[in-house]
Amino acid sequence: PVLHGYFRSSCSWRVRIFALKGIEYDQVPVNLIKDGGQQYAQQYKKLNPMQQVPAVEIDGITISQSLAVIQYIDETRPGTPLLPSDPKKRAQVRMISDLIASGIQPLQNLSVIQKIGAEKVPWAQHFISRGFQLEPILKETAGKYCVGDEISMADVCLVPQVYNAEFKVDIEQYPTIKRLNATLVEIDAFRTSHPSCQPDTPD
Amino acid sequence: PVLHGYFRSSCSWRVRIFALKGIEYDQVPVNLIKDGGQQYAQQYKKLNPMQQVPAVEIDGITISQSLAVIQYIDETRPGTPLLPSDPKKRAQVRMISDLIASGIQPLQNLSVIQKIGAEKVPWAQHFISRGFQLEPILKETAGKYCVGDEISMADVCLVPQVYNAEFKVDIEQYPTIKRLNATLVEIDAFRTSHPSCQPDTPD
Repeated sequence: PVLHGYFRSSCSWRVRIFALKGIEYDQVPVNLIKDGGQQYAQQYKKLNPMQQVPAVEIDGITISQSLAVIQYIDETRPGTPLLPSDPKKRAQVRMISDLIASGIQPLQNLSVIQKIGAEKVPWAQHFISRGFQLEPILKETAGKYCVGDEISMADVCLVPQVYNAEFKVDIEQYPTIKRLNATLVEIDAFRTSHPSCQPDTPD
Repeated sequence: PVLHGYFRSSCSWRVRIFALKGIEYDQVPVNLIKDGGQQYAQQYKKLNPMQQVPAVEIDGITISQSLAVIQYIDETRPGTPLLPSDPKKRAQVRMISDLIASGIQPLQNLSVIQKIGAEKVPWAQHFISRGFQLEPILKETAGKYCVGDEISMADVCLVPQVYNAEFKVDIEQYPTIKRLNATLVEIDAFRTSHPSCQPDTPD
């Protein structure tokens, strides 16, 4: 697989969790800031008409949404399962993943924040705080990880979101989120996929 | 199952597609406008800490994200499958669903539009137009429906989004989206789940 992504993009980070499945992949950096945004280049538009990252070329197709990529690799590759076998737990994993991927991230990603302009900090704080109302949900579903004691797609969504939120909201208000994140960031696959150590991370 | 939803909510409409699977369900209306928003009531917060619709009580759990609900009923109930059996097609269905559910809807739902205020119309137009860049993707994946000739979760996401967009952008610019929508709205399950004929639809 080839991942077209950006080191700071939380959705790209979700896909770099390829590492959790032990999958080797190539990275092609798409700098969202340089040259007015390399995602707007004609060449990239051919690959991903949405002009967003990530986009993953895999098995002859291009998939451009991180949760679709994660579930595709989970269904076609061996290694740590990222969705539980129990349907109710699967539903909880998807619910928590979507609460982050649809409920928080889209409202404070780069293109939205650029459009908001001067009010961008309170805007991001508002929507992250609203999204972190998932604290009582996680309190119910969590064991060692977001849903029970097995790592899942929900954890893959949580870590990049907390990284993004840490400088904007006080994470102490969310003890379950804080505890889960602290456990997860110690795992090798989260360390190696961290924005601080990607091929396109500035020195 | 019990659906807590709102007639005009596009995410609630996605769940009303229970009808496609032939599933009987009860509806409890949550009026997002009346009384300052009934989703903010303490009673509802106990059911769904996110204070959003939809929330579905089913098989002893509450699921509060529409795509998690759809995939749960698809995995546990007989009837028309909403995800194809081929993994690549499943990935395409999930990609298109997420392009709408994460890429368009969250940016122009009620709570965001209320926060944007006076600029709400151009704001919604901008993000719907950006989201409908999925036109060339659908041109590749579509047969009779969004992905090939079998109806899927992607179609369930498309119809409510087009309904929401029709008064904001010129749908003629998106011939594949227009054609797919015209086919889908003729199907019984989309007619009976339409916002114009729900228990809480005003006269």
